[in-house]
Amino acid sequence: MSEHEHTAHGAGAPDDADPALVADGVVDLLGFLAYASLVAFFRLADDASLAASLPDKADLAAMAVAQFGHFKLLRSRISELGSDPQQAMAPFVEAIDAFHARTAPSTWLEGLVKAYVGDGIAADFYRLIAQLLDQRTRSLVETVLADSGRAEFAIARVREAIAADPAVAGRLALWARRLVGEALSQAQRVAAERETLARLLAGRSAAQLGEIGRMFATITDAHAQRMAALGLAE
Amino acid sequence: MSEHEHTAHGAGAPDDADPALVADGVVDLLGFLAYASLVAFFRLADDASLAASLPDKADLAAMAVAQFGHFKLLRSRISELGSDPQQAMAPFVEAIDAFHARTAPSTWLEGLVKAYVGDGIAADFYRLIAQLLDQRTRSLVETVLADSGRAEFAIARVREAIAADPAVAGRLALWARRLVGEALSQAQRVAAERETLARLLAGRSAAQLGEIGRMFATITDAHAQRMAALGLAE
Repeated sequence: MSEHEHTAHGAGAPDDADPALVADGVVDLLGFLAYASLVAFFRLADDASLAASLPDKADLAAMAVAQFGHFKLLRSRISELGSDPQQAMAPFVEAIDAFHARTAPSTWLEGLVKAYVGDGIAADFYRLIAQLLDQRTRSLVETVLADSGRAEFAIARVREAIAADPAVAGRLALWARRLVGEALSQAQRVAAERETLARLLAGRSAAQLGEIGRMFATITDAHAQRMAALGLAE
Repeated sequence: MSEHEHTAHGAGAPDDADPALVADGVVDLLGFLAYASLVAFFRLADDASLAASLPDKADLAAMAVAQFGHFKLLRSRISELGSDPQQAMAPFVEAIDAFHARTAPSTWLEGLVKAYVGDGIAADFYRLIAQLLDQRTRSLVETVLADSGRAEFAIARVREAIAADPAVAGRLALWARRLVGEALSQAQRVAAERETLARLLAGRSAAQLGEIGRMFATITDAHAQRMAALGLAE
């Protein structure tokens, strides 16, 4: 990013690490991402138990471990900004727990699709918000982003399963739709309850709250491409 | 260790990485440790869900992640030695799964004691076997060992719980005895079934199989010290 482009972000993206210059809502955002990463760690570790083979278990466990690494980075940044990580995460516990309670995979393939879809949506979301953040928080988000894409192994496994039994495709497509529906429904709930976070995501202008809708649209477009990669109709 | 001391280990501890010079039973040992680490990852992640607070969950999750790191190191070494990690782990699945099935914690404190006791016994065991191994495998084991001791946080938590309710001490002491009893019983079963592994641990001489008993005695002595650190009668 050139100096000119950077300056264009104005107060929404200060380069200074001074907590006072960090946009309102950034601690909210970090708290949300930190709790989402911590829970993703637990859920992926749990879902890995559905795997029949040790290599499959190890692959999903590796994704879980990566999520814990993200959690640690996000937690450190919250502390650096002078906030308490536990307090920063607290407002998002209910929505994130509700999402996982409603989307517990009942088979290994559902777990794989959830891991792949979840990893992809998280990466899209990180990419979209990176530009709204101060320099140090943006670097952290880019570090996390560079560590995503670990779910690519899922594509081959899901395609193999569909080749072996084409009926699997319809059930998994339905499952993927449910995942995205639940994610968007919980995300909208969070955005409605946390005004500063919603403003941050909308470019800090209440008039631009429609931006959140556009952000979701971008994410669902990318989701459609991932569904195609898995061999699933959207 | 001096060159002289090293040479004294003779064929039991070759410095060469040539697979042909690696003692019989080393792949068995690595397979055992790899599967134990992988399962420890899943069990610790699962037990962390018993924690009431997010920091407690994160502490136990960090221990789980460390175990996954050990698993990856051990798995790589098995592949380096020309063996298939899944095959190397297979003979130990039953015993290790049985241990965990019989020692599933029902409370957060039981989970903490299991994490602390398990981490300690694993470290003692790694320390004892390190000297039996070829140079590269020994380095790996020392790397794993340097990464242990993550369960120290459990000491303060368990002591606080006992201070608040002294009756807790008796129940947790009983629990710790059960953990060690189950671990030794499964370890003896593995030693009986895997002759080459038993020989490796006994210094490669069938006449010294009593060494395994002495090894277990060393580990149970260290266990008694850990019980005292937790404030539990052995």
